[in-house]
Amino acid sequence: MGRVTVRRRVLRIRDGAHSHRPDTLAAEEPMEIRVNGRPLTVTMRTPGDDFDLAAGFLVSEGALHSADDLAAIRYCAGATADGSNTYNVVDIALAPGVPAPDASLERNFYTTSSCGLCGKASLDAVRTTAAWSVDEDPLRTTPAVLTALPDRLRAAQRVFDTTGGLHAAGLFSADGDLLCLREDVGRHNAVDKVVGHALREGMLPLRGTVLMVSGRASFELVQKAVMAGIPMLAAVSAPSSLAVDLAAESGLTLVGFLRGASMNVYAGAERLEPAPVGS
Amino acid sequence: MGRVTVRRRVLRIRDGAHSHRPDTLAAEEPMEIRVNGRPLTVTMRTPGDDFDLAAGFLVSEGALHSADDLAAIRYCAGATADGSNTYNVVDIALAPGVPAPDASLERNFYTTSSCGLCGKASLDAVRTTAAWSVDEDPLRTTPAVLTALPDRLRAAQRVFDTTGGLHAAGLFSADGDLLCLREDVGRHNAVDKVVGHALREGMLPLRGTVLMVSGRASFELVQKAVMAGIPMLAAVSAPSSLAVDLAAESGLTLVGFLRGASMNVYAGAERLEPAPVGS
Repeated sequence: MGRVTVRRRVLRIRDGAHSHRPDTLAAEEPMEIRVNGRPLTVTMRTPGDDFDLAAGFLVSEGALHSADDLAAIRYCAGATADGSNTYNVVDIALAPGVPAPDASLERNFYTTSSCGLCGKASLDAVRTTAAWSVDEDPLRTTPAVLTALPDRLRAAQRVFDTTGGLHAAGLFSADGDLLCLREDVGRHNAVDKVVGHALREGMLPLRGTVLMVSGRASFELVQKAVMAGIPMLAAVSAPSSLAVDLAAESGLTLVGFLRGASMNVYAGAERLEPAPVGS
Repeated sequence: MGRVTVRRRVLRIRDGAHSHRPDTLAAEEPMEIRVNGRPLTVTMRTPGDDFDLAAGFLVSEGALHSADDLAAIRYCAGATADGSNTYNVVDIALAPGVPAPDASLERNFYTTSSCGLCGKASLDAVRTTAAWSVDEDPLRTTPAVLTALPDRLRAAQRVFDTTGGLHAAGLFSADGDLLCLREDVGRHNAVDKVVGHALREGMLPLRGTVLMVSGRASFELVQKAVMAGIPMLAAVSAPSSLAVDLAAESGLTLVGFLRGASMNVYAGAERLEPAPVGS
């Protein structure tokens, strides 16, 4: 797996016994994303699928909507003093006419709303920048399909088993077929890699799909799903309040605590068949 | 707990049975950190301990080193169109003579090194910005003390039990006494809240302490520990490669997979007594 994992010597202590042994770690390296040669952001990520990560990040920021918006993606040479390539700087050349994102976009994202910096303003910002709506997506699936996803996600994770240190994001069909899996030390990066892959394959918006993530569901992950046109997000652990609010406002189905045969549905339960009793 | 948790109605599905019930969620809201009135960054955080969060963030960025560097911290009024206070904008007034951090610091952090954007440059950047060294810290502790920390951390978490959605960071003495606990939807925020509390209490650098975090140990968390002068970081889950590299280079003791009676020591094992056999 090359740069995705790294071997290090570790002291293991178990029930008072000590042993030295090699351990496999998930690799983490900084990556700078440039647009038309200008630095936009730096993220700490697990190397691999770097072009997907850069493209997906720009989808999440509302700067890219289709493969046609992309002219080229490449690693920048000359990033070091001796001119060698660290493979940690990715430059995206936008197609003619595609406006470059504001380098201070992240900050402006929350502060341009006239209602001030609050959860509601954050929801409004997503609505005004999303290129499509997930509200009308006709996706329907069953609890049985959903409860099978965590095991499928874990089974497909190549690196987690050796390191225990990687988050996963998996894109599934309504029938539970795995369409794309990406791993990263950062959950948001794993999602960006999935979305970037989909953009480059001409699959956006990702209508009729389910995004499954390890760990928790934050506002940021729901935002990324909405920006990619994904109508359902499922997480192994808890969602935050603002994640639920954004899901409800956007018409995204949000499932949390998806474990064993149980789950909590926080928004958009109408996409589950048969219709839940008592709903 | 006020704004720390939020109640929402949820559909629970378990073994085919459906029920609607109220659920308690961890609150997530944006918070803007300003320095001398100028916006620096926005973070999505769980409300509460906001002044600690703002102060700790600036310690991590190398802008604050003692309580004397702080003139005042306050919530900004006038953040909304009607002039009301959202309690989501915190302004830090620096003491006279304390230089304000560069608003583009995060990007510059990685790119000012002459060796280019790579893991090594990230390590160098921490070394050149840290105000003190943890390398010579005389802290010594035992595996027995460390194995007790996860349960103490969990027992002290007020909000996790009701939401399942909050990360925790706990500062402990060498004897395992809890000095400070903070919770947040973001693990990095929980650490910043601990560090900011310590700064405001005049406790920096945090010599002789152990920082315990739920979840994984990333480069960013090791960086925050080093910037606060904490000589030991323990995590429930896996560290990344760059977290281990930074710990080794900084002289910080890094413990991962701290569960039950076992742990992995990735760097700085000399702080564990008795000296591990075979080391």
